[in-house]
Amino acid sequence: MNPAGLTALEISRRAQLRPIAEVAAQLGIAADDLDLYGRYRAKLSLGLTRRLQDAPPGKLVLMTAITPTPAGEGKTTTSIGLVDALNRIGRKAVVCLREPAIGPCFGMKGGGAGGGRAQVVPMEDINLHFNGDFHAVTSAHNLLAAMLDSHLHFGNALGIDVRRVLWRRVMDMNDRALRELVIGLGGAGNSMPRESGFDITAASEVMATLCFAESLPDLKERFGRIAVAWNAARRLVTANDLKAAGAMTVLMRYAIQPNLVQTLEGSPALIHGGPFGNIAHGCNSVTATKLGLRLAEFAVTEAGFGADLGAEKFLNIKCRKTGLRPDVAVLVATIRALKYHGGVKVADLGRPDVAALTAGLDNLRKHLENLRAFGLPVVVAVNTFPSDTLEEWQVVAAACAELGAPVARCEHFTRGGEGAEDLARLVAQTAATPSRPIAFTYADDLPLLEKVRSVARAIYGADDVVPEGATAEKLRGFEAAGFGALPVCMAKTQYSFSANPQLRNRPRGFKVPLRDARLNAGPGFVVIYTGEIMTMPGLPKVPAAEAMDIDADGNTVGLF
Amino acid sequence: MNPAGLTALEISRRAQLRPIAEVAAQLGIAADDLDLYGRYRAKLSLGLTRRLQDAPPGKLVLMTAITPTPAGEGKTTTSIGLVDALNRIGRKAVVCLREPAIGPCFGMKGGGAGGGRAQVVPMEDINLHFNGDFHAVTSAHNLLAAMLDSHLHFGNALGIDVRRVLWRRVMDMNDRALRELVIGLGGAGNSMPRESGFDITAASEVMATLCFAESLPDLKERFGRIAVAWNAARRLVTANDLKAAGAMTVLMRYAIQPNLVQTLEGSPALIHGGPFGNIAHGCNSVTATKLGLRLAEFAVTEAGFGADLGAEKFLNIKCRKTGLRPDVAVLVATIRALKYHGGVKVADLGRPDVAALTAGLDNLRKHLENLRAFGLPVVVAVNTFPSDTLEEWQVVAAACAELGAPVARCEHFTRGGEGAEDLARLVAQTAATPSRPIAFTYADDLPLLEKVRSVARAIYGADDVVPEGATAEKLRGFEAAGFGALPVCMAKTQYSFSANPQLRNRPRGFKVPLRDARLNAGPGFVVIYTGEIMTMPGLPKVPAAEAMDIDADGNTVGLF
Repeated sequence: MNPAGLTALEISRRAQLRPIAEVAAQLGIAADDLDLYGRYRAKLSLGLTRRLQDAPPGKLVLMTAITPTPAGEGKTTTSIGLVDALNRIGRKAVVCLREPAIGPCFGMKGGGAGGGRAQVVPMEDINLHFNGDFHAVTSAHNLLAAMLDSHLHFGNALGIDVRRVLWRRVMDMNDRALRELVIGLGGAGNSMPRESGFDITAASEVMATLCFAESLPDLKERFGRIAVAWNAARRLVTANDLKAAGAMTVLMRYAIQPNLVQTLEGSPALIHGGPFGNIAHGCNSVTATKLGLRLAEFAVTEAGFGADLGAEKFLNIKCRKTGLRPDVAVLVATIRALKYHGGVKVADLGRPDVAALTAGLDNLRKHLENLRAFGLPVVVAVNTFPSDTLEEWQVVAAACAELGAPVARCEHFTRGGEGAEDLARLVAQTAATPSRPIAFTYADDLPLLEKVRSVARAIYGADDVVPEGATAEKLRGFEAAGFGALPVCMAKTQYSFSANPQLRNRPRGFKVPLRDARLNAGPGFVVIYTGEIMTMPGLPKVPAAEAMDIDADGNTVGLF
Repeated sequence: MNPAGLTALEISRRAQLRPIAEVAAQLGIAADDLDLYGRYRAKLSLGLTRRLQDAPPGKLVLMTAITPTPAGEGKTTTSIGLVDALNRIGRKAVVCLREPAIGPCFGMKGGGAGGGRAQVVPMEDINLHFNGDFHAVTSAHNLLAAMLDSHLHFGNALGIDVRRVLWRRVMDMNDRALRELVIGLGGAGNSMPRESGFDITAASEVMATLCFAESLPDLKERFGRIAVAWNAARRLVTANDLKAAGAMTVLMRYAIQPNLVQTLEGSPALIHGGPFGNIAHGCNSVTATKLGLRLAEFAVTEAGFGADLGAEKFLNIKCRKTGLRPDVAVLVATIRALKYHGGVKVADLGRPDVAALTAGLDNLRKHLENLRAFGLPVVVAVNTFPSDTLEEWQVVAAACAELGAPVARCEHFTRGGEGAEDLARLVAQTAATPSRPIAFTYADDLPLLEKVRSVARAIYGADDVVPEGATAEKLRGFEAAGFGALPVCMAKTQYSFSANPQLRNRPRGFKVPLRDARLNAGPGFVVIYTGEIMTMPGLPKVPAAEAMDIDADGNTVGLF
């Protein structure tokens, strides 16, 4: 798939990287604000963040997408291509992205560092261990778990109900055998036997918390609020009750600093924070986004999954909490995905099919309506594939014209920034109009269940929601505990507007089951589960790890 | 305890650190061979290691100790003080140390970065996350575990006996609740239910393997040999059988590079590899030791615990495998520990007691005899405490004179390098004599059980060993599988020459029980368990973590 038959890793390795200090200097960052991690990676000081916080911000570009196929529609590559293109046409731009998790690299997932000629580099460093942030999250999360079980071991003065512990452990590895465990076995020296399990680190509440903390004291206060268990009196026990927040913050001292790397074309990239797109809000840290806006004329940031999930949470959670406001949204679509929504099988997506394409445009229309309902101007980016035909492109272009949405074909995957210059010009032009306040989907003071209902009706197009089991009771419990004003963070399949991944395109006449709800007091939201969400992936039968190796020159090979 | 009433962390923070590039330049290391990790930490390139491998080596100083009290006798501080002192008297010296684990920092252990005026800095960075090496070991170890359980899940083509899996998981945390688990619960999607557990990362065979690997291909080959389970046919299943070695090596790509930091006085410190002193060999990486010898006139390296454990394993394992040969051993003693061996209770060690001191000198004599039996010249370093009296010192000095061992009083803890200048002069003088080949305790071709017997008799002064349970059978099994030529790595209490921590001083007439044996094919040794060895510590009732915090300036506080 890649240009010239090269893997992403090979393209990355052949790139002429600039010393990262040079990339920083171009953004006006002094050496004192730069902590180097090798030659091509750096962390930026919190002092820089503080000093720039009142500087006039640049334009914020929100990269989102239509409902994706299992292959993804290319938001990350389009974000990178757009920033390269903006820089090419003389507009200073920086891309803000999530950090990829390590574990999935060994399974079958592609990397989280773009692909083709639209990559952030060095890709193997960004995908593995990247400046230690995921490891710091793992340590801080598991320290809290160890302190909790140690508390149980030494008499349980807080009266924690061992059957109602909320805090699990995390590991940045695809390891299905750790999903459900019995821990504390082996006798009285080994704490209390109880059921527990591991999630992957990206799913840690510590990660989501990191993404909202704007300073170390803020991070510590947020950690302190994290609920770890119910006690016998049915009150929530927090990290502060276990006196863990200070030490957790110490472990996160460097992880809170945004990371600077570059694209293949030398554009600056802030890659910081890697929360799950399903059970968390799925976008990079607030610190990185705010910093990006102060360092450049344009900050392009990506929100995970389709716009019904990523953009909805970006706007209703991240923007609501921080005052951030996108000046323009880019809605990424592919002709393949539109045909998929029009009913074509995955295996047949390479064949021209104007009828299916036309039908599938309903999906794009609904996402466009939703983004506009938030008050955002939208540019459509069609991420091209070699199988696209001219006729198909003309169908999409005509539909966008009818919808009044500027649209650009993008070829950044094969051509780099040059291939996204049309998009860059449309984005710059659209962003020039002053942005309006965001029209949030729900008000802070609405009951939690009503917030969920608002999202389901307005964004998903559902008839209603159906709270199952103890969900409604849990939501009332969170309200009673003082968390009623929090926004809701929807955990839903990314493959459909509905909770059923089989319902493609723009489904109607469906209801959204609400299976469970969990409080995330650290980042400050209530997670709503609309189905089974896997928080610890497994390895496939033949994991990618089997092909990974170090060659004779010490280079990594086989990393997709 | 610290000078001027400051904590180790406060002393560390007040130090005027030199940019690490300057420390490197003084060793003749070019910027191209230096990967910075922030301002005061760096990793050195493998290219540097390769280019220098045939350069003439400096003198190797092995830092070891008498049988310690629970407080430890100060090998790390003496190593640091000696190197500072050597540099002060104009002899270029570098200290080679193990990396401290993160987990114990949150329990009650002091840091692994020295103390008082003899520290390596920045101490909080060295103790927490230090350049990511422990995290890389954790990832590589747990990747192998995930691949193993995934293999079981997908049909177990290798016929692994799920009751005889040898490979556990690791976490760098004191977490007793993870010692014994049942994993794979929750149904058919979550692999096979089986018993397992977690060790602390320092106890990982991946860590011990790292410490012996001298290149990435060497590391990969060693990883491939690691035995993870027995199959139904009672053959060992290896990491190579699971096709895991390449990906494990990819994860260790940076961890294999030695880390450069500095002492409080600006002397260079190579801190690399952190294997357990009990179930592993307990010293820093071969790469760092060899590199240190090429970068300076003196490389001072520390071996964990007393000389019966640390020095014995350093010589019989590390030196045997690598050709390294100490030019002089420094035997650290304290008057407190000598009185302890003479029968004084821990609470009373601050009181003068010449009779007990005189009796306790037997412990020092036995360690001295042992080191000399290896063919090493020995200098005794008395690490002073404020409670020591002049009379007590004179007793020790007279005993050393009688034994023909040069002895120096050391005050590096309160005075830094200046306080260890006497020791530095004795060490330099003693090392000037060409060293002799090491007289190993046993030959490669001796049966494994005989190797253990040789160590127990010659080094511990035991009458014999007593193989218990299946130990003798296991050893024969390892021999049958082709591992008979490996050295033995003794796991024994550090508080006695015997396997009984209550037997202080120089016990006689005892036998050493051999409770278990495990193959460590990666580093290349067979671990012999002489008692219960804890491989996953727990937190105390009031863990140190409770006092840790970030102050208003973003500085870490409460880290011992």
